[in-house]
Amino acid sequence: MIGHIQLETAGSGLYEITAQLDAVVRGSGVTEGLCTVMIQHTSASLTIQENADPTARRDLEAWMERHVPEGDPHFTHTLEGPDDMPSHIRAALTSTTLSIPIENGRLALGTWQGVYLWEHRRRGSRRRCVIHIGS
Amino acid sequence: MIGHIQLETAGSGLYEITAQLDAVVRGSGVTEGLCTVMIQHTSASLTIQENADPTARRDLEAWMERHVPEGDPHFTHTLEGPDDMPSHIRAALTSTTLSIPIENGRLALGTWQGVYLWEHRRRGSRRRCVIHIGS
Amino acid sequence: MIGHIQLETAGSGLYEITAQLDAVVRGSGVTEGLCTVMIQHTSASLTIQENADPTARRDLEAWMERHVPEGDPHFTHTLEGPDDMPSHIRAALTSTTLSIPIENGRLALGTWQGVYLWEHRRRGSRRRCVIHIGS
Repeated sequence: MIGHIQLETAGSGLYEITAQLDAVVRGSGVTEGLCTVMIQHTSASLTIQENADPTARRDLEAWMERHVPEGDPHFTHTLEGPDDMPSHIRAALTSTTLSIPIENGRLALGTWQGVYLWEHRRRGSRRRCVIHIGS
Repeated sequence: MIGHIQLETAGSGLYEITAQLDAVVRGSGVTEGLCTVMIQHTSASLTIQENADPTARRDLEAWMERHVPEGDPHFTHTLEGPDDMPSHIRAALTSTTLSIPIENGRLALGTWQGVYLWEHRRRGSRRRCVIHIGS
Repeated sequence: MIGHIQLETAGSGLYEITAQLDAVVRGSGVTEGLCTVMIQHTSASLTIQENADPTARRDLEAWMERHVPEGDPHFTHTLEGPDDMPSHIRAALTSTTLSIPIENGRLALGTWQGVYLWEHRRRGSRRRCVIHIGS
């Protein structure tokens, strides 16, 4: 089964999509299987991160901003703005696609795991993900 | 089919889990398919790395320790200890989930590839992985 | 279904393999499903990146060369040459395996997405990928 989710991001940062994914899984009726989500963009990405203390996610974002900074004088791909090239690199360092087992009709995530869409562009955008549910 | 493996880690480092995964694959009876393994934690991760010379794995660990160091004064998420925040970042930079084709009843890994659980916490922990085998 | 692709790389850099993958998908006759590609090496990797402006890929390669440089005096795994250890680290920071949904008989990539094999060794090599197509 193929499903889709869309998210309108309001700016850079981590947006949890666990609930939307779980809704697609429930809608599929699959109780034991595999859920794969792929983001259809190269300036946003996916990651599974701690869903408890938000300071963990902020420190993760800040590390990325320090190590893949905007305005790096080495960048030549600057036509789409100073936040475009860092976005592509940050996407390459994280994930474009994630496969999560389904157990008892739910994503088999650990207690503290959430699935996040990571918007890397400053202004945000409409982001689309394609989801495959297999058994 | 869904399976599980557990590993008690003794401290930070790379622990090979190829044999445990291959045992789950053999137990499934699937000869051609896909094996997906997901670690249910955000302070440990997965990676496929060279399984021959151990110096390659030590250099990989050391690179990570230099670039995502403990005690980075930028970190604010420090309540769970100085090794907690680096663990989350190191996990985001590597993999939480891996999908490996099955061919002739075995993981279709290259000659020098092994699957590793990467413990990022200093003290180690009991780590759980969920495995999905599909055809 | 299991398929294979081989690529003879001419040196380090990003090589697009989207067309080869799409050919395997078409050959499978699967119209809705999941395509997983795994590279059977630890000194080359996979990534989904922008397939339009080549300066984006060059900046990505250059970032990696600056942050995981050849000749880093910390490296001890140097027997196979100065470009070997950086290759393993660059592979760990990107992807060894990618799963892409299939929709209407094609890889459900976004408009600007291409699938790339990233050769990290200087001299290039014969690189093999295993592909699994599931429904």
